[in-house]
Amino acid sequence: MTYRIAVLPGDGIGVEVVPQALRVLEAIASKYGMSFQFTEALIGGAAIDATGHPLPTETLELCQKSDAVFLGAIGGPKWDTLPVHLRPEGAALLPLRKHLGLYANVRPCRAFSALIDASTLKRDVIEGTDLLVMRELTGGLYFGEKKRETIEGGERAVDTLVYTTAEVERIVRLAFEAARKRRGEVCSVDKANVLESSRLWRETTMRIAADYPDVTLTHMYVDNCAMQLVRYPKQFDVIVTENMFGDILTDQASMLAGSLGMLPSASIGGQVALYEPAHGSAPDIAGQNKANPLATILSAAMMLEYSFNQVEAAREIEKAVEAVLNKGYRTGDIMEAGKTLVNTVEMTDRVIEELA
Amino acid sequence: MTYRIAVLPGDGIGVEVVPQALRVLEAIASKYGMSFQFTEALIGGAAIDATGHPLPTETLELCQKSDAVFLGAIGGPKWDTLPVHLRPEGAALLPLRKHLGLYANVRPCRAFSALIDASTLKRDVIEGTDLLVMRELTGGLYFGEKKRETIEGGERAVDTLVYTTAEVERIVRLAFEAARKRRGEVCSVDKANVLESSRLWRETTMRIAADYPDVTLTHMYVDNCAMQLVRYPKQFDVIVTENMFGDILTDQASMLAGSLGMLPSASIGGQVALYEPAHGSAPDIAGQNKANPLATILSAAMMLEYSFNQVEAAREIEKAVEAVLNKGYRTGDIMEAGKTLVNTVEMTDRVIEELA
Ligand SMILES: [Mg+2]
Ligand SMILES: [Mg+2]
Repeated sequence: MTYRIAVLPGDGIGVEVVPQALRVLEAIASKYGMSFQFTEALIGGAAIDATGHPLPTETLELCQKSDAVFLGAIGGPKWDTLPVHLRPEGAALLPLRKHLGLYANVRPCRAFSALIDASTLKRDVIEGTDLLVMRELTGGLYFGEKKRETIEGGERAVDTLVYTTAEVERIVRLAFEAARKRRGEVCSVDKANVLESSRLWRETTMRIAADYPDVTLTHMYVDNCAMQLVRYPKQFDVIVTENMFGDILTDQASMLAGSLGMLPSASIGGQVALYEPAHGSAPDIAGQNKANPLATILSAAMMLEYSFNQVEAAREIEKAVEAVLNKGYRTGDIMEAGKTLVNTVEMTDRVIEELA
Repeated sequence: MTYRIAVLPGDGIGVEVVPQALRVLEAIASKYGMSFQFTEALIGGAAIDATGHPLPTETLELCQKSDAVFLGAIGGPKWDTLPVHLRPEGAALLPLRKHLGLYANVRPCRAFSALIDASTLKRDVIEGTDLLVMRELTGGLYFGEKKRETIEGGERAVDTLVYTTAEVERIVRLAFEAARKRRGEVCSVDKANVLESSRLWRETTMRIAADYPDVTLTHMYVDNCAMQLVRYPKQFDVIVTENMFGDILTDQASMLAGSLGMLPSASIGGQVALYEPAHGSAPDIAGQNKANPLATILSAAMMLEYSFNQVEAAREIEKAVEAVLNKGYRTGDIMEAGKTLVNTVEMTDRVIEELA
């Protein structure tokens, strides 16, 4: 089976870590009867410099006709002073997701045993944590109508939080599907005691649950969830929640594992899904062969699992990453005393050795 | 100076911990030239049982003519099935705060050295944490217009997030005032990259900051703040934020100290402020002399400081609590091996001994 991948390295360390993840994919391909056709395109600051726009039409068209999109990172100080409609994040990533119909962001958060001491939480609290946050991406407060008006003595600003039954239903189904492949537990996070949109969210979730009798559904208020993620993160399997709650909780959950350098992510729900590391372009270490490639390598594993249903190949990559960590290899961001410091390419070499 | 306190024990363990905090106030009164006139009134489930309504008019009137309101806890399973307009929390606490004009909730979060091992965060991460979250209480998403409408294929639910310049200005001023009495740092938390209300919040905060040149102002996005509270909580002095963000962040921050049983709170901004422990009515342990009275005792200290400017007396109570913990006395909720288990009354006895 040949998979056509749109490869968008983007900016900063994206340019360094993406090729490393592609090496890992190449290394595992023949063993699972896969082959890859990688086609590179510009996005973000690199695209602005070359074409004047962060999401060129050719890039978008390439993505739409590919089997999956594999992205590095976007943005950097060079483009931070551009007008909003040209800034890499707002004018590239959001429209790209929109055009591809991607309404769900998936962020697994797994505590690698070898890295637990890098977490600010105690070992017994974090050990064994293996959760996944599914965040709605296209609705809610960030996309609702906004306005500002002058009133007596100042101004009045308004944001609007809107959800429809259909929007809730489709992401909740994805969460139930994901839970089926995991431990069979969905925790739906809302604020149904005060928000009308959360009441619709909860009612819809309860209705959909009837189609998944093999999955256990619980509900939790968002403030309690923020508390429980610190108190006892092991209790969670799949968390599903609306856009802004997900924005907050995924960032909080990302701290459990100790480093953003380990966290993959996927945006799914359309025909073509998008995979990228949870970290950014890290301009401070770009171009120095220092970046941690593991989040990107793990994003490649997610692509194999979610887009191509190559679950075994995905597991093998994840196990290789774990083995390399257990052997003590570390990039700078996760370095501890007594471990072996390696650079971006060397870390990838170690992962590929484990696959052999 | 005689202070008239409206005492509202409420439900569950509220009935047990409130009298203990009053004993502490009595114990310290004469030393600081204070006397207290405590007048008890009904609120919550107890008020429903006696009068049919969770916030009787006599209770509200008493509060309005007192110098401060001292509350225990509200609610319990007995009243959970009542219609919403009679339920203790929604029909008592919210209207009480509204009538008293209380627009700011203040939650200090201090890591007591003796309790650090009860935190899920590592000792070196939590040690020395001493922050205060100031949450806007009357505006934002929880109080904006809500609606639900039928559309093709389902429903559409809407919540509205509204803030005015005046609403932001008054709470931000309180935050700057609080920071002046602490380490002089305000971190304003918003989501100004996507929300119009947050942009108004940030502009207003920056303008008000000019009146407080002695205080350092920083801004942080809410998702980053949720991450930073786990990563490095010591960086914060005063956090000020809007209603829903504050709801989430205060609950998350409450986990840092290891137990809700230690956290006092105040609702301020009007003529008469309200003080209460951050924990609830804990029906499971009510009536057993097991509850931790320290959050309520620390709430009494906050009352002395915020409402009566009796800062020294407040500090003395806080030090007494710390001394008792250092000597190893623990109620069940914070019990650890090797410590001395005490009940509600005994714990208070120990605190009063330290004041002597
Ligand atoms: Mg975020
Ligand atoms: Mg809360």
